[in-house]
Amino acid sequence: MESARRLVERIIDNGDSRAGRAFDLTIQALIVGSLLAFPIETMPQISEELRRWLRYFEVFTVAVFTVEYLLRIWVAPNRLRFIFSFFGVIDLLAILPFYLALGVDARSLRAFRLFRLIRTFKFVRYNQAVRRFWRAITLAREEIVLFLGVAMLMLYFSAIGIYYFEHEAQPEAFANVFDSLWWAVVTLTTVGYGDIYPITVGGRIFTFFVLVTGLGIVSIPTGLLASALSKARELEEKESPADREEP
Amino acid sequence: MESARRLVERIIDNGDSRAGRAFDLTIQALIVGSLLAFPIETMPQISEELRRWLRYFEVFTVAVFTVEYLLRIWVAPNRLRFIFSFFGVIDLLAILPFYLALGVDARSLRAFRLFRLIRTFKFVRYNQAVRRFWRAITLAREEIVLFLGVAMLMLYFSAIGIYYFEHEAQPEAFANVFDSLWWAVVTLTTVGYGDIYPITVGGRIFTFFVLVTGLGIVSIPTGLLASALSKARELEEKESPADREEP
Amino acid sequence: MESARRLVERIIDNGDSRAGRAFDLTIQALIVGSLLAFPIETMPQISEELRRWLRYFEVFTVAVFTVEYLLRIWVAPNRLRFIFSFFGVIDLLAILPFYLALGVDARSLRAFRLFRLIRTFKFVRYNQAVRRFWRAITLAREEIVLFLGVAMLMLYFSAIGIYYFEHEAQPEAFANVFDSLWWAVVTLTTVGYGDIYPITVGGRIFTFFVLVTGLGIVSIPTGLLASALSKARELEEKESPADREEP
Amino acid sequence: MESARRLVERIIDNGDSRAGRAFDLTIQALIVGSLLAFPIETMPQISEELRRWLRYFEVFTVAVFTVEYLLRIWVAPNRLRFIFSFFGVIDLLAILPFYLALGVDARSLRAFRLFRLIRTFKFVRYNQAVRRFWRAITLAREEIVLFLGVAMLMLYFSAIGIYYFEHEAQPEAFANVFDSLWWAVVTLTTVGYGDIYPITVGGRIFTFFVLVTGLGIVSIPTGLLASALSKARELEEKESPADREEP
Repeated sequence: MESARRLVERIIDNGDSRAGRAFDLTIQALIVGSLLAFPIETMPQISEELRRWLRYFEVFTVAVFTVEYLLRIWVAPNRLRFIFSFFGVIDLLAILPFYLALGVDARSLRAFRLFRLIRTFKFVRYNQAVRRFWRAITLAREEIVLFLGVAMLMLYFSAIGIYYFEHEAQPEAFANVFDSLWWAVVTLTTVGYGDIYPITVGGRIFTFFVLVTGLGIVSIPTGLLASALSKARELEEKESPADREEP
Repeated sequence: MESARRLVERIIDNGDSRAGRAFDLTIQALIVGSLLAFPIETMPQISEELRRWLRYFEVFTVAVFTVEYLLRIWVAPNRLRFIFSFFGVIDLLAILPFYLALGVDARSLRAFRLFRLIRTFKFVRYNQAVRRFWRAITLAREEIVLFLGVAMLMLYFSAIGIYYFEHEAQPEAFANVFDSLWWAVVTLTTVGYGDIYPITVGGRIFTFFVLVTGLGIVSIPTGLLASALSKARELEEKESPADREEP
Repeated sequence: MESARRLVERIIDNGDSRAGRAFDLTIQALIVGSLLAFPIETMPQISEELRRWLRYFEVFTVAVFTVEYLLRIWVAPNRLRFIFSFFGVIDLLAILPFYLALGVDARSLRAFRLFRLIRTFKFVRYNQAVRRFWRAITLAREEIVLFLGVAMLMLYFSAIGIYYFEHEAQPEAFANVFDSLWWAVVTLTTVGYGDIYPITVGGRIFTFFVLVTGLGIVSIPTGLLASALSKARELEEKESPADREEP
Repeated sequence: MESARRLVERIIDNGDSRAGRAFDLTIQALIVGSLLAFPIETMPQISEELRRWLRYFEVFTVAVFTVEYLLRIWVAPNRLRFIFSFFGVIDLLAILPFYLALGVDARSLRAFRLFRLIRTFKFVRYNQAVRRFWRAITLAREEIVLFLGVAMLMLYFSAIGIYYFEHEAQPEAFANVFDSLWWAVVTLTTVGYGDIYPITVGGRIFTFFVLVTGLGIVSIPTGLLASALSKARELEEKESPADREEP
């Protein structure tokens, strides 16, 4: 019994062994398949047969994830701790909606399907990029939060200002400050859909000043994230210098 | 009396003590609340009751800010100097519109409401990000101004050029150079609303060259600000190295 | 015979000699000419005579490229190895469509013309920028792939989310998750054509959060490429320090 | 006579002396005034009187620039060399159109007015930012040219590709490869006016791949310019370290 537990542990917790790598790849393939199946289900024109096969795939995926979850509980040194850990909760949430949906009325099934997306967080465990990304965010957390705050202030001022310039000329488009906030978001990120834009001379001059001062502010958190990311990589390389070969 | 003054001073000027931190957080919460109340007031569909409660909140906020302002004058080592300092003026401007609006005709009240936004500058005092941001701007002031100048020249040339290419084909959209300037701003910041764009072959080729040369120029002040910001952080860390823990 | 081969080798493989440089420039000019002829052929309004001249130019270009290909095989130390090398295959693919098109029905000729574009890859051989660019991509390959993965996940989540917010309000524009994916691509790259955008309050707030978190993520691969490029330049300078003069 | 020449030389060539600085500022103010007068003239609704005053200002400006030009020839150590130098030619071109317009038919006057813009290049002499900018471009000239080449190739491929995907579905919008090129420019710079965009599934997937690979390429010349600029500043600081005070 104990040796079986050891064997399972080596497979699901150790990505370096051959069996462990195969196990990781299988789980990842199932997550990706699950992610790809989701958009296809939203298409109204797919045939009944394809819909049935997607349903079979869904049942199979949940079955594998359930076995994986139970095995992880079994091999955990401290079972309660695993169940309430971040990955334990994610693993449970990834399968729970399926079982809950079995016991309830079919009509409310659609809302539950959305929870299936939580499954993608399982991906985090297997993905080095996500891990490094997370580390970068942790490194620059304080700063990114502070400058996101400044960016929010900038958005707020822009929204109030454009409201005073454009509300009278375009009472529909700039009906209230929330519409102006939408304008501010779309403009300062330079997306510029074209659904809402200033037409008065005052509003255009204001937009000019908002863009001149705002573009710099809005792009700062992005810059902070980029430099935090290179710091995270440096730290990673220091910890495991053998991992990276020089090309 | 003197000890009371000391006590007040310790609370409103010293964010490190427990009472001081609580005081700071209260003032900040009131500023944020005041900022959030403003957009809600612009919505025409809100009920009379909600409008009344927003008004009560406004009176309460101004009352607290008035008391804060008077206390700051009281504890200031040099009272006149505080009154005419940057923060002294901001603190006064944040409450003055409310009192002025009391004595005047209700119709002109709307314009005064705009001045309430000055209150947000009180935020600056409490916000580390704004302070660091200000420092970065001071560090790179000379350069940012110089390159904003180059960017302005670029906008100007683009506007004149597109006017000559598009004025005849689109006499409404490109009616004069000011309309072209609006086009230049929207294009070189890559916002691109789609309300005004070239349709002639010459105008499109010109736009191509403007974008090729202009995107680099327009993004330089942003880059200068970003590098000034990292300099400002380094200076801050040198001054108070104990503030930042290594993760 | 052997001396003739040596001479040819010195010309086509050695860009430093005078004849070699002239040969390189000729081939490059023909590639550029071929590239420029292509768009002109797509214009329906060009005269029959111009079309005939473009055809003559095409025949001439392919003839030169064929001679070049045969000479390269002739002078190669290991002929089979050259034929199956990257540049060998590109050189063959650049001329093959023309000969295949001679033997087939004129109607399917149009599809073959697209393959002519492969010819531009011949350009890679002669272009230092492309070579350095390739090196930069090789240097940062692993990282760029990882963060492109994160960006893909971000696009996926945005598409699923906006589908749930906007599908009911705009059943035409957001008909299925694939339409939402198009919206996510256009929005997160800040292109913002304006053909598809959220109109519900929930969808707009979601867009705000998507932009705040997504802009940073999408721009990371670009940043990685830029820093890899400066690394590639440093390596190049170390290898041939005499090539670059200090201004 | 010689001492008068020395005096004039000190004023117009030496921006460090008091009189020299005043002279520089006057010329710069006239250039700025001349630039501002230009867009106002394009407005059809301005009064005849304002138009007359703008004309008087124009005559005055040209008179001052003419005197400046003659004085510069007078004090130049080598007069012919000055006349054919970059700034000599610019100074002449800035006044020449005015004199040529005097002798010709009033109808062709409008075209000459465009040449007045050359006057802005006089600005270059007085503007430190423009000088540093120029230096940065000189430093990174070779690289910027190379990567602009790669960006051009990218635009070209995108245009050809989208033409094949969208030509049949939108024969008007994507009529030929030149329209596709316009689409490629507007999309890869992320301007996205919304006047032309793909609607087929193939075209949208192609756009996705173009954006994923192209955004990085298009932004590289900008990044190169930014880093060249910081190099130029370092060189400047080395040459005149006393100019910059530490804040």
